[in-house]
Amino acid sequence: MSPYSIGVDLGGTNLRAAAVSRDGKMLGKVSGRTQFSEGREAILRDMVEGIEGLREQFGVEHLAGIGIGVPGFISIKEGIIRNCNNIAALENFPIRDEIGHRLGATVILENDANAAALGEKWIGAGRHVDDLVMLTLGTGIGGGIIAGGRVLRGVHGMAGELGHITVVPYGNPCGCGNQGCVEKHASATSVTAQARMLGLGDENITARDVYDMAKAGNPKAQAIFQGMGEALGILLALLINTFDFPLYLLAGGMIAGWDAFAPTMIAEAKRRSFSFRTTDISVEKAELGNEAGLIGAAYLPWSE
Amino acid sequence: MSPYSIGVDLGGTNLRAAAVSRDGKMLGKVSGRTQFSEGREAILRDMVEGIEGLREQFGVEHLAGIGIGVPGFISIKEGIIRNCNNIAALENFPIRDEIGHRLGATVILENDANAAALGEKWIGAGRHVDDLVMLTLGTGIGGGIIAGGRVLRGVHGMAGELGHITVVPYGNPCGCGNQGCVEKHASATSVTAQARMLGLGDENITARDVYDMAKAGNPKAQAIFQGMGEALGILLALLINTFDFPLYLLAGGMIAGWDAFAPTMIAEAKRRSFSFRTTDISVEKAELGNEAGLIGAAYLPWSE
Repeated sequence: MSPYSIGVDLGGTNLRAAAVSRDGKMLGKVSGRTQFSEGREAILRDMVEGIEGLREQFGVEHLAGIGIGVPGFISIKEGIIRNCNNIAALENFPIRDEIGHRLGATVILENDANAAALGEKWIGAGRHVDDLVMLTLGTGIGGGIIAGGRVLRGVHGMAGELGHITVVPYGNPCGCGNQGCVEKHASATSVTAQARMLGLGDENITARDVYDMAKAGNPKAQAIFQGMGEALGILLALLINTFDFPLYLLAGGMIAGWDAFAPTMIAEAKRRSFSFRTTDISVEKAELGNEAGLIGAAYLPWSE
Repeated sequence: MSPYSIGVDLGGTNLRAAAVSRDGKMLGKVSGRTQFSEGREAILRDMVEGIEGLREQFGVEHLAGIGIGVPGFISIKEGIIRNCNNIAALENFPIRDEIGHRLGATVILENDANAAALGEKWIGAGRHVDDLVMLTLGTGIGGGIIAGGRVLRGVHGMAGELGHITVVPYGNPCGCGNQGCVEKHASATSVTAQARMLGLGDENITARDVYDMAKAGNPKAQAIFQGMGEALGILLALLINTFDFPLYLLAGGMIAGWDAFAPTMIAEAKRRSFSFRTTDISVEKAELGNEAGLIGAAYLPWSE
């Protein structure tokens, strides 16, 4: 047996864990049986059982480490999830040390968007570069920044909060207290909210429905995706002007609507960034899909 | 004699050079006698003479290296100034190797705003941190990013172009091809342009004049500084959300108007950044004034 690590993704409605080899091969994968709504102890037990199963299967002595990707703000120093929309039961609980204690192993905690960016950097669309920014376009917008091959965390572990960057100064209000955050103008939630505002559907309308309308020629639906493209273009341009990194990746469910928003996004980003217009900087789709966070979490023990 | 290095600042209308000790003490300083308008050969000769004078004075054998800060886009790999508004004569000329050849020494080239940020990090307002962002508010707006104690350069040396970040999506047009760049809403040039637009003065009006009017209660002048504060607040908030660095410094001539724009800037940045509102992140004035670029250039040989 060769060295492997275990990654855990707490990002959805239940957890997933995977054993991944040093060269990025997925060796084995398990899904938790517990819904996050069942509470903290159930989640912790689920996580420990999943990891233990993989560890027994692939050999305790070959395990390089355990990485856990969680949604929300992480306090890296203390190993605590400070703020977590999905799993309130884990907020302000010393999850890193508790899991480490139960397993007798070292655990690394990371924000799930950061973990996903790290996964893409390792074996995905970013495998040829050391520096990239990744945007995950889902119900919200998450950001992950990889600088010099490592996650840029910031002093409180709050770096890469790109979804809450202002792109429309007096735009839609956001739960974070700001208005005009990019995630209020370019996420799935913002697309459906605007569609309802324009009378395109009721509370059951999905971003996919709006996309289908846009492709069928509905001008209101097209305007929504154009607004999404403009908002993302402003964000991309400012990221390019700030970092001058070679690669900017887009991931998440909204990537399915690429052809409806990307042309506007690229044109807007070029207009707003001299560097983007005059260099070989790339904006691309991510490659690993839902696996990015899991793979990136597994890479954490090797990226420190 | 102890080790020292020589920094050169090409930022103004003529060059300055300084010998600086390893602990940041200014040992000696010279100013060039040539105006940049006299052309390339005159500038190069001036630079070489200035450096040679300092080197003879403080000992060839103790010289750690030579750093040169220049305005404009630098191609770090080739040691070339790609684009320079102030000194067109030096564009696309291999200045690093030419100076190095004439002096028989190793030369490091850096963008002047980056050099200034490095100077503040070394012995200025950023001496207690390893990560900071600095904005220089002058006729334009320059940016410098220090990450892990070193300049963040990007893949083309174009990182930190913060003056051209969009803060007003359909705002004032900019020479870079964009509109609503922060330097078109918060630089000295933008303040005087708006003052003329509002009939507060003619082509001779200065940012200082507008500041004096604002302090005397003129509501138009006050609105100009409020707009400046809002634009800078949007920029600061997005930088904080992106980096989560502990320190953001403001420098340059416009800092003299701090009390006219900073209260709005801070309020706007807090409104637009959850991290800024809830952590101990600092926004402060830089400390080294005009010397920052010179001192930072001198630090370049030690920061590699």
